[in-house]
Amino acid sequence: MELGLLFLGTSAAVPTPARGLPGLAVIHRGRAILLDAGEGTQAALTRYGLSPLRVEALLVTHLHGDHLFGVPGLLQSMAMAGRRGLLVAAGPPGLRRFLEEAAIATRWLPPYPVEVHELVPGEVLVLPSGWRVEAYPACHTVPGLVYRLVEPPRKPRVDLEAARRLGVSGPLLGRLQRGEPVVTADGRLVRPEEVVRPRPRAVIVYTGDTAPCGSVVEAARGATVLIHDATFTSDMEEEAHEQGHSTAADAARAAGEAGAGLLVLTHFSARYRDPGPLLREARRIFPRVVAAEDGLRVVVRL
Amino acid sequence: MELGLLFLGTSAAVPTPARGLPGLAVIHRGRAILLDAGEGTQAALTRYGLSPLRVEALLVTHLHGDHLFGVPGLLQSMAMAGRRGLLVAAGPPGLRRFLEEAAIATRWLPPYPVEVHELVPGEVLVLPSGWRVEAYPACHTVPGLVYRLVEPPRKPRVDLEAARRLGVSGPLLGRLQRGEPVVTADGRLVRPEEVVRPRPRAVIVYTGDTAPCGSVVEAARGATVLIHDATFTSDMEEEAHEQGHSTAADAARAAGEAGAGLLVLTHFSARYRDPGPLLREARRIFPRVVAAEDGLRVVVRL
Repeated sequence: MELGLLFLGTSAAVPTPARGLPGLAVIHRGRAILLDAGEGTQAALTRYGLSPLRVEALLVTHLHGDHLFGVPGLLQSMAMAGRRGLLVAAGPPGLRRFLEEAAIATRWLPPYPVEVHELVPGEVLVLPSGWRVEAYPACHTVPGLVYRLVEPPRKPRVDLEAARRLGVSGPLLGRLQRGEPVVTADGRLVRPEEVVRPRPRAVIVYTGDTAPCGSVVEAARGATVLIHDATFTSDMEEEAHEQGHSTAADAARAAGEAGAGLLVLTHFSARYRDPGPLLREARRIFPRVVAAEDGLRVVVRL
Repeated sequence: MELGLLFLGTSAAVPTPARGLPGLAVIHRGRAILLDAGEGTQAALTRYGLSPLRVEALLVTHLHGDHLFGVPGLLQSMAMAGRRGLLVAAGPPGLRRFLEEAAIATRWLPPYPVEVHELVPGEVLVLPSGWRVEAYPACHTVPGLVYRLVEPPRKPRVDLEAARRLGVSGPLLGRLQRGEPVVTADGRLVRPEEVVRPRPRAVIVYTGDTAPCGSVVEAARGATVLIHDATFTSDMEEEAHEQGHSTAADAARAAGEAGAGLLVLTHFSARYRDPGPLLREARRIFPRVVAAEDGLRVVVRL
């Protein structure tokens, strides 16, 4: 798929027989950005056929064990798979020390470069692939980040009708696409904006763990896909918010306020064997919603 | 089962679709001693129906990721399961710092007492259940321990024939079993050793990762069951030894020299989908051998 999501783990706090701990891959043109890596992520990559060599970046939302404890093993499995290329690892402050201490305990360092970024809300990271990672604050019990991922700029589309009308064809079109003005055979100056049309860029927003929060809506503004904490149903609202989590209804309200294209619910408490109740309560508020499950692939189209 | 083994993970270095990372439970009278906890151990406990509340001790052989990275998540799943009782955690020096750093990163401490013991070869730990844990040196690339676990002393058996001959019966038998001399109705002094017979104690030896090594044979002397690193077949002997591992033939030779009752091969390289070749090469040297697989239960009888 050109751009898609692969859910590696969709459980909260503890794994269940059906759901692993949090992990999500954003796959684009053969490369992947991993969002969180709970224990079991390296095994989930194998199970769902995503090579660890394809992971260009690993973004951790917050340093809770269920989102973090798969990271050291994932780094090792990347080495076992023969990785030599750069890995970008980002997360809240404390990530670097956690990785260093795992290296000290095991006397093992990755045989490939790892670039660690400790991010605070408001910071932006541009990955080697051109994906833009924007960090927003989550509302959780420890410092957490909501990630807004913006697709790299795409080659603009040529408006063939406009081109024909203006008498532009052949190599001139390529130069217009690259942003250069051209002069046609009959001496007319044509500017790029007369012929080429920018393509919209996909925006993927992943909340990690969060209670309902203005900054989540801000992060999710106009998102193509919003993947949101939906740990509980609304009858558990008080408990959810106390623990820094959202209900499915909270997630749906955030998607509605942000004008998201699609909402994916995830991070389900082990009390829900069937995500039906979560999905139904969200759908009453925001109709374009699906419930994640381990191994689910979502093709993203604008 | 009165005494048994449950294999939670039998792979080396990386998990495969069929095998998880190292983990082994010695289950005795409803309590369990865990030997190593690679990533995925908490999920394996659920899969194979062993409650984390039954684990009295967690013994780590060495601080390599594939044997260690399941520990922090396991501690959390014990808390989620409502644990309040003491957990004994033991391993080579460095284990305490690793656990402390995981606690610092995640801002989380177990809500139950954890007693951490950093062991060096030669040290002995007696668990609350009475199991004796003896630490021997492994021959690996980092400091590693071979654990020799000795069953708690068992109530001795009464030799009913001898008792009848000496005229001992009723409550006197109980006193003899408790180690007290008694005087019979006809005035005869009977010492415990005349009537009660000590029961043999099971000895379970687990090597963790090791190359062939005199101290492993010493640790395994007379073991009821020896669970031994068998990462490769003999055609890979040089690579095995260089990496601090054993071939299946090495494991069989150690079992033979030690006079072990049963040999269980484990820690298989991902290159072996079928452990048949490993088993066959060991069986030629030591016939009482089985190959572990995830979920395998071995009932231990003396």
